Amino acid sequence: MKFKASCELEYYVRFPSTFIFNIHALQTAHQTILEETISVEPSIKSEEFTSTLNENRYFRLEIKKKGLIKISYQAIVDNNCQLVNLAEHPPIPISKLDQTVLPYLFPSRYCQSDKLFRLASNKFGKIKNQYQKVVAITNWIHRNVEYLSGVSDSQTSAFDTITERAGVCRDFAHLGIALCRTLSIPARYFTGYAYQLNPPDFHACFEAYIGGYWVIFDATKLAPLNGLVKIATGRDAADAAVTSSFGNVQCNYIHVHCEAMETGFVPHVQQPTEMLGISY
Amino acid sequence: MKFKASCELEYYVRFPSTFIFNIHALQTAHQTILEETISVEPSIKSEEFTSTLNENRYFRLEIKKKGLIKISYQAIVDNNCQLVNLAEHPPIPISKLDQTVLPYLFPSRYCQSDKLFRLASNKFGKIKNQYQKVVAITNWIHRNVEYLSGVSDSQTSAFDTITERAGVCRDFAHLGIALCRTLSIPARYFTGYAYQLNPPDFHACFEAYIGGYWVIFDATKLAPLNGLVKIATGRDAADAAVTSSFGNVQCNYIHVHCEAMETGFVPHVQQPTEMLGISY
Amino acid sequence: MKFKASCELEYYVRFPSTFIFNIHALQTAHQTILEETISVEPSIKSEEFTSTLNENRYFRLEIKKKGLIKISYQAIVDNNCQLVNLAEHPPIPISKLDQTVLPYLFPSRYCQSDKLFRLASNKFGKIKNQYQKVVAITNWIHRNVEYLSGVSDSQTSAFDTITERAGVCRDFAHLGIALCRTLSIPARYFTGYAYQLNPPDFHACFEAYIGGYWVIFDATKLAPLNGLVKIATGRDAADAAVTSSFGNVQCNYIHVHCEAMETGFVPHVQQPTEMLGISY
Amino acid sequence: MKFKASCELEYYVRFPSTFIFNIHALQTAHQTILEETISVEPSIKSEEFTSTLNENRYFRLEIKKKGLIKISYQAIVDNNCQLVNLAEHPPIPISKLDQTVLPYLFPSRYCQSDKLFRLASNKFGKIKNQYQKVVAITNWIHRNVEYLSGVSDSQTSAFDTITERAGVCRDFAHLGIALCRTLSIPARYFTGYAYQLNPPDFHACFEAYIGGYWVIFDATKLAPLNGLVKIATGRDAADAAVTSSFGNVQCNYIHVHCEAMETGFVPHVQQPTEMLGISY
Repeated sequence: MKFKASCELEYYVRFPSTFIFNIHALQTAHQTILEETISVEPSIKSEEFTSTLNENRYFRLEIKKKGLIKISYQAIVDNNCQLVNLAEHPPIPISKLDQTVLPYLFPSRYCQSDKLFRLASNKFGKIKNQYQKVVAITNWIHRNVEYLSGVSDSQTSAFDTITERAGVCRDFAHLGIALCRTLSIPARYFTGYAYQLNPPDFHACFEAYIGGYWVIFDATKLAPLNGLVKIATGRDAADAAVTSSFGNVQCNYIHVHCEAMETGFVPHVQQPTEMLGISY
Repeated sequence: MKFKASCELEYYVRFPSTFIFNIHALQTAHQTILEETISVEPSIKSEEFTSTLNENRYFRLEIKKKGLIKISYQAIVDNNCQLVNLAEHPPIPISKLDQTVLPYLFPSRYCQSDKLFRLASNKFGKIKNQYQKVVAITNWIHRNVEYLSGVSDSQTSAFDTITERAGVCRDFAHLGIALCRTLSIPARYFTGYAYQLNPPDFHACFEAYIGGYWVIFDATKLAPLNGLVKIATGRDAADAAVTSSFGNVQCNYIHVHCEAMETGFVPHVQQPTEMLGISY
Repeated sequence: MKFKASCELEYYVRFPSTFIFNIHALQTAHQTILEETISVEPSIKSEEFTSTLNENRYFRLEIKKKGLIKISYQAIVDNNCQLVNLAEHPPIPISKLDQTVLPYLFPSRYCQSDKLFRLASNKFGKIKNQYQKVVAITNWIHRNVEYLSGVSDSQTSAFDTITERAGVCRDFAHLGIALCRTLSIPARYFTGYAYQLNPPDFHACFEAYIGGYWVIFDATKLAPLNGLVKIATGRDAADAAVTSSFGNVQCNYIHVHCEAMETGFVPHVQQPTEMLGISY
Repeated sequence: MKFKASCELEYYVRFPSTFIFNIHALQTAHQTILEETISVEPSIKSEEFTSTLNENRYFRLEIKKKGLIKISYQAIVDNNCQLVNLAEHPPIPISKLDQTVLPYLFPSRYCQSDKLFRLASNKFGKIKNQYQKVVAITNWIHRNVEYLSGVSDSQTSAFDTITERAGVCRDFAHLGIALCRTLSIPARYFTGYAYQLNPPDFHACFEAYIGGYWVIFDATKLAPLNGLVKIATGRDAADAAVTSSFGNVQCNYIHVHCEAMETGFVPHVQQPTEMLGISY
């Protein structure tokens, strides 16, 4: 399925600053970039590079003088996300996990999995199957946390959300990750463009490592899991921020858009009796 | 300078568990491993691998039945740590930082640099030189935080220590890292064996990225900076824990030892008028 | 029912210090002190006074020189705690609450009721009857929080316990109070001697203000509600600490004892179909 | 000195709600209310009562139907605040403190004095004189905390402010109180109307109990200490909120005004060489 994903960001730079953007779509085995353009106004020398730590494509800009700066990105992406029958893939014990997966077992800035052990064990410990365990976590967050703008901010973490029970997609993802890691399931933060997300924005959800696949989950249930354009993964939002700026800048607006280039999109619906996960 | 570093750890395993140890000395440009042995009693198949994310050598053990397990590690290491005159190496702006260094600018589980901006700016913002800034951070922590066992635990983070003002080497390191990152200086956690540390134990300190070098700092001032045997670096203790265990285990004891194999060790002393840093 | 309550506390005083003890049984409409002795060794001038803020009898000692100090208290108390049929007492709206009750609606040090609104509303908001609401809170805490020594300390608050899900009687009480206040039910901390508490210790539980009565609840369910000897009430443990010391002292031991002076004690059992509360 | 203090508050009540206002000026030995009016539009039966716990005059309104409600208060007050030479009043040891003062030694919701011991001891422990100690605390807060709207909210406490170093008058007061209590100086929250406060608003500062007097301190230094009209004191903002509402209401505006009715006002200026405190 082909999607066109785009964004436009405008900043006012108060004095010399460096930006690191993380807005490019990833090229993966299940996501092909067919066309891609990025432009900066006024024109400035930029640098693009790929992280070796996580899955990120960074775009770095050094702004030497004050003024407005506008970044426009657009990509046409072929989403071949994989439908995996997890009933056929037994869980991988920690003793066999690939070393690149291990870091996603440990707590991170916004996912304090070290604090949630009893709560997670009580609620989800009895579910034997790993996939069903993460589905249960996702459903529990969806039922118990209210989607609400303005109650959380960039410092809000899973430890806050588990008590305050409200937040945005970032907070839902952090709580899902923290609960998975507490139960020794590797989990990581996912950012992307999301088809049918309303209002349109960058979206965040999470991936859990089950049966050898990074399977995607979205506790907000605000967008179809098979309509995403993957931008990045990381341990949490600290690794995969859309923008990091160093200096003194002010964001004027962020516009995000994602549309289907073909007809016939069928949203993936999780069936309770099946164990079909989506992997990017 | 040659050092012999060793440790012995004993655990009681209550039921099948997996351990990931991070106790091997690193091989780096400035640290050569001359001899090394590790043994596990009873004998169990083990696996050693190197992280691609951080500098870690992991040793993984899967224990399938309950009972005692003892790990003994010993290495003879040639420490050629580098003395760098940072007066000759100008700071590297964020716009030129290598991408492998960037992750050490972001907050992590125990180093919530996103919460310390005003405090760090007020105290250290006026110091222009990056090396002197980190020296000032180190001295400030040394003066203001009390070295005390039993007041902090594995969940204690820089955000706690900045207020509670007491802790152990791990807490001193986390606070140093957080303050550096707040001021846009990349910083990371360092664990090692430490000559002349008394009582002997695994030690933790931190590295800041200055003028193209990872320079080591130790706010506890409990061991000479040029008498360390580097084990690992990571974003914080979540990345470089000596032991991570999954299952149900109880630690009986950890013995650590570090001795010089040659005479004539001269501890490095930071001179206020010089800008000589140590890099591993 | 007559109970004999006693305690013995020994401290080592390192230099001149002041103690404020809160270990005397209260005289209330439903609790009569028949006999009472307190002794201090070595003999020191002491002062007893009653708080006008909360229900506390304070015992203040000024120790001018270093050494051991032992306090022994014993009382024979007639417990006439009241059995109230709350089905007959409609709830009192906030607009009619006596002003002495109002402070118990507000958050306090260990009961951050201002942070639990969504969680409390979701879980208990639909229960109409106030008494049944507090019974549900008590049962929920009992099911979800593990009684465990050593995981909490004197700084632990309801905000921690709601996530960490383990603690001692003090933590269970704080969480109960916080959840009640969040739902606009006045609630306060209760300390006392407890018959059949095993191992014997000072006990903490909480009172909620329902239908004009301060009704007692104990989420630990470790001691019969009608076998208590009330010492104090307050907003939380900050108001009703057994001992507050100013100076430098070390506690050697605290022994607590509570026995029945009559036979035929029948523990009160909350029947799901009844609305019988106990009030002291 | 005569002042006219007034406020006007408008709320939209969404459904039946109860308000408790705490906006009346107090009558004290050093503050005389000469004239006072309060009106509610539309006219509703109200109730006024005085707290026995703290110094508060409460005004309770029960609103039974939805709609706008406007409260207008105005008072002419004679401020006879006392100038006390604290050099002549030795500190009162805890062993001699009146029992009504003791509660102000303990931690409260927004003043976690139990967490600041080492920090407070290091910074202020060496200052022998109690008055000078609180002056030093006040000056330290003034220098280190930035007065800034929008960075703190109703859940912000001294534990946050000590690290985040920014806030409004409420946060400055909470931090001052917490630091005093940590050093065994009773301290309490003070709210009032403030002459020459710009922009006009309700003001918060704190009182410390020194030499038998509740002496006022204001770490914001935004208004003269002798130009206040005292509304209330309490352990912290939980005890002395301007408005507490139960139900569902929305605040449309709060207007506050304070003017001198006489000429010749001379702002009190703390002289470093004197120990003259102001007490209300």
